[in-house]
Amino acid sequence: MNQTKQKTATSGKENTHKPYKKQEKGTAKKKQTTKNLSGKKTVTKSNYKRPQKPKLPIKIIPLGGLNEIGKNITLYEYDGDMFLVDCGMSFPDEEMPGIDIVIPDFTYVLENKDKIKGMVVTHGHEDHIGAIPYLLKDFNVPIFATRLTIGLIEGKLKEHKLLADAKLNTVQAGDTVSLGKFNVEFINVNHSIPDAVGFAINCPAGTVIHTGDFKIDTTPIDGNVIDLGRFGEYGKKGVLALLADSTNAERPGFTSSEKLVGGSFSHFFSQAEGHRIIIATFSSNIHRIQQIINEAIHCNRKVAVSGRSMINVVSVASELGYLNVPENVLIDVSDINNYEPGEIVLVTTGSQGEPMSALHRIAFSDHRQIEIIPGDMIIISATPIPGNEKLVSKVINELMKRGANVVYEKMYDVHVSGHACQEELKLIMSIVKPKYFIPLHGEQKHLIKHAGLAEQVGIDPKNIIISQNGNVIELQKNSVIAKETVQAGRVMVDGLGVGDVGSIVLRDRKLLSDDGIIIIAMSVDRYTREIISGPDVVTRGFIYVKESEELIKEINELACDILERCYIHNVRDWNTVKAKVKEGISRFLFSKTKRSPMILPIIMEVNV
Amino acid sequence: MNQTKQKTATSGKENTHKPYKKQEKGTAKKKQTTKNLSGKKTVTKSNYKRPQKPKLPIKIIPLGGLNEIGKNITLYEYDGDMFLVDCGMSFPDEEMPGIDIVIPDFTYVLENKDKIKGMVVTHGHEDHIGAIPYLLKDFNVPIFATRLTIGLIEGKLKEHKLLADAKLNTVQAGDTVSLGKFNVEFINVNHSIPDAVGFAINCPAGTVIHTGDFKIDTTPIDGNVIDLGRFGEYGKKGVLALLADSTNAERPGFTSSEKLVGGSFSHFFSQAEGHRIIIATFSSNIHRIQQIINEAIHCNRKVAVSGRSMINVVSVASELGYLNVPENVLIDVSDINNYEPGEIVLVTTGSQGEPMSALHRIAFSDHRQIEIIPGDMIIISATPIPGNEKLVSKVINELMKRGANVVYEKMYDVHVSGHACQEELKLIMSIVKPKYFIPLHGEQKHLIKHAGLAEQVGIDPKNIIISQNGNVIELQKNSVIAKETVQAGRVMVDGLGVGDVGSIVLRDRKLLSDDGIIIIAMSVDRYTREIISGPDVVTRGFIYVKESEELIKEINELACDILERCYIHNVRDWNTVKAKVKEGISRFLFSKTKRSPMILPIIMEVNV
Repeated sequence: MNQTKQKTATSGKENTHKPYKKQEKGTAKKKQTTKNLSGKKTVTKSNYKRPQKPKLPIKIIPLGGLNEIGKNITLYEYDGDMFLVDCGMSFPDEEMPGIDIVIPDFTYVLENKDKIKGMVVTHGHEDHIGAIPYLLKDFNVPIFATRLTIGLIEGKLKEHKLLADAKLNTVQAGDTVSLGKFNVEFINVNHSIPDAVGFAINCPAGTVIHTGDFKIDTTPIDGNVIDLGRFGEYGKKGVLALLADSTNAERPGFTSSEKLVGGSFSHFFSQAEGHRIIIATFSSNIHRIQQIINEAIHCNRKVAVSGRSMINVVSVASELGYLNVPENVLIDVSDINNYEPGEIVLVTTGSQGEPMSALHRIAFSDHRQIEIIPGDMIIISATPIPGNEKLVSKVINELMKRGANVVYEKMYDVHVSGHACQEELKLIMSIVKPKYFIPLHGEQKHLIKHAGLAEQVGIDPKNIIISQNGNVIELQKNSVIAKETVQAGRVMVDGLGVGDVGSIVLRDRKLLSDDGIIIIAMSVDRYTREIISGPDVVTRGFIYVKESEELIKEINELACDILERCYIHNVRDWNTVKAKVKEGISRFLFSKTKRSPMILPIIMEVNV
Repeated sequence: MNQTKQKTATSGKENTHKPYKKQEKGTAKKKQTTKNLSGKKTVTKSNYKRPQKPKLPIKIIPLGGLNEIGKNITLYEYDGDMFLVDCGMSFPDEEMPGIDIVIPDFTYVLENKDKIKGMVVTHGHEDHIGAIPYLLKDFNVPIFATRLTIGLIEGKLKEHKLLADAKLNTVQAGDTVSLGKFNVEFINVNHSIPDAVGFAINCPAGTVIHTGDFKIDTTPIDGNVIDLGRFGEYGKKGVLALLADSTNAERPGFTSSEKLVGGSFSHFFSQAEGHRIIIATFSSNIHRIQQIINEAIHCNRKVAVSGRSMINVVSVASELGYLNVPENVLIDVSDINNYEPGEIVLVTTGSQGEPMSALHRIAFSDHRQIEIIPGDMIIISATPIPGNEKLVSKVINELMKRGANVVYEKMYDVHVSGHACQEELKLIMSIVKPKYFIPLHGEQKHLIKHAGLAEQVGIDPKNIIISQNGNVIELQKNSVIAKETVQAGRVMVDGLGVGDVGSIVLRDRKLLSDDGIIIIAMSVDRYTREIISGPDVVTRGFIYVKESEELIKEINELACDILERCYIHNVRDWNTVKAKVKEGISRFLFSKTKRSPMILPIIMEVNV
């Protein structure tokens, strides 16, 4: 337990290893009056229990993460002081073709730059840190997080060339950070990445517990069991509100321990004797990778690592001591063929079937160094994220066609979730005993399920708040108001463009992908308005032109007809002419083919 | 059991209710020598057990349904006589934007028109009958199927204006159809649609059992338990090969009976007292609909039906007697509001979250007649087909946001599968006792799992054939050859176009949907080669133009630059000029935006 090491991160340099750690002035001043929330000691109550003036509410504003998976960001406010929890990205869905990632709308954050004292981060997954570089471009907010999380954020900021000026502060579980009128205590939780924390957010309005992503693992790989004791202490003292992770609220029971996966690995390693083993998993699941390495050592196998993010994470985690890799265990992928198949374990990305990932390229014989050998044992140590099921299946099918043995089902216990299931969720509620409950992180169905669990443990339904992004929840001991809203939403990132693709562009992309485009180009005499070149018909994504010359000819003739009619009837406005061409050809094509390609007439005026 | 009613479908008019029933000449001649395969009688063996000349193999050619879900079609051949089993479609995947459906490549079927004596159909699902109209356009093959299946095929043919000339023959389970040198016996099986059958295919090379889609339901709604007895009789006589449904080969255990769902309905109907009930399910699941109607009657509720295919199927099934709806139970959707919510059950399409379906429109407040009332009980009586998970989730989330109670998880038993799980698959194998085993209907992973089950029940691994579409499997008592292949594949249907969209068109659609298109149009003097109009830059799906005027201007200037350089260097070939424009702008945009839109230069020559 880290409880004994509690410190105020702002009160000394020893907790930070970055030279860029700076406190906002307001925070620095506050430092003197801030007391640690120590496990056993009685907390100095003057800050939040005995107000001298009428009590103010704490405002909780989820700016992302509600009614969606990912893009987690929450803003807390008390008496003009604000801070952020997390700043994640999400992945585009099928209605956002060509979009790379989705980030939160930062409008409200930027409008309140002066009030925001810092950001605390629960853990290093993309849906909690992925949007940080996009925020830091406009607002260099001080960031407080645990060591591995800081390491992963550093990697991101380096890519975006933002590391030099960033204000990164390393905090340990058990530490408390002062952010204006808030004290935020970091509390250890279990998750599918090491160094994950939840927060006890203390302010004069009361204590709010923000779990972040978590599960309860009584036998975690690093020995750091979630600090239920600390959550329980807060519960006994009285908690105003609990904000908890709803990801697995639909799943009954208790999430299995990460250790279970180690047992399965051991089974499959012995079964694969003499054959190569390839394991795909999430690169951030360092405990999973540790278990693979341990088993490899036990079976005298060398470990090679493939996939850019996997190589990165293994290097960061080894450097920071989160991954224990003895010498002479890791080998380079290019050296694989110097060993017998039975002497190798390859750890790779691609557990979600991502088309550019190492495993996908291996499956489709598109990898420079690795080709499937019949008998290879392939373990997909992950569950498909909703939407990726078909991609993963395709990879499995291809691997099997090449003679590999593929282990992928849940029943083999080669993966466990990182999120709490229903019994764990109820357990946290029952020890935190919050007055108000706000389910976070999930679609509507997850939030509603989670709310149902809260009712089961006896939380008053009136005090359960299913909120929306941008909703301002004002909480006080005896009242909850959630009427005001602020700007919140999604911003799409496409290449280097942030927010320059909107609904019109997406609608056009969707149209283009459905039936393609037909361009009808012509040059006209500016004065006589006669066609002097064209119309030329060019199509893309509509029909295979070489086999459809007849149809193209018909389109051409129809365009000529329409233009001639316009000319005869003295229609002189080019926009009207274009609209007539568009309409006529559109109608003709639909009746002929039942398709609706985009029709784009281009008329060029020429001075002859 | 229908066993006592066995007849040769070709020997009398009484089995068919269509005037179009005609036998191919070869079949008609054969009629005299064909004997029924009666349950208890000894079969006349001369046809297939005591050959006078060296035995010929039976050829089995799966033309679809292997390494994929859907598009099921299998061709059987013996001594120059052929027949087809099923002719289904499949749905496009994410790599086929804009495609409506996928059908089999009929090349090999059409090449062998003269040899093909008919088609037998297992059941009326789209993946088994959906491509029939596309085949019948070119080859009016006689079709043999059970009554409901014929009814559903008729509906399809009507839409395609092919019904008048079609040769449809109604057969009952227990009947045998002669197709050239083949006798095909129809054997009752259970599935998620009534009137499903498997086949015992008899020819001098031996008996092949082709299950079609099936499950074992000991308490089916219509009382017609799968005819395990008949399969067992064949097993005792000796079966050369078994071709069986692999869909659920990954699932352990036994698929639950359809009756289980009725029990759940009963539970939720009583829970929803006073509230409206909306149930979404597959329109073809007539037993499911029957159970809803029964429960509605029991609870004094009226039933309304919504969704085109649901209305169609309910009408066909009621007409043919597969759905028992007492008078005054069905009401029109437009009359719903004349009743109290607690007096209504609405049965609807959309259980897969399909964007145009009734349930989707209800969820997104886009339905003309039905709006969600808070408290509505909505039951999604289906499991998402892989790839539809996110669509279904979206609908659930929207319904919940509007205050509906949505029941959708498997644990509530509001859906059971129509396909056999592992224990059922092993049971069929163990009673059919085939020499050879060929898993059908499934992706590679399903086929391999199914093969593993066959090994478990003792089938020699050498005799288990995991095949591919187009592979010719030649089977004889003591040999299997599977070397030859014939043309097989997929043909994409887009609107009225069949096969006119190929890989180039799809690639363009994909490109267009990723980053859109930029058209650079200009008119040039044919003789001087000077630009006399343009270049005009038009974009679609690339960027929001009004906010990117600067970039568009830069593209324009760059195009001018490149053209001028071409002019100065006397590059006179327009294709070279276009290539230079394309390359230059492509490189510029990628460095500037990290995007790769399609670049389409259009140069129009003008005689000035």
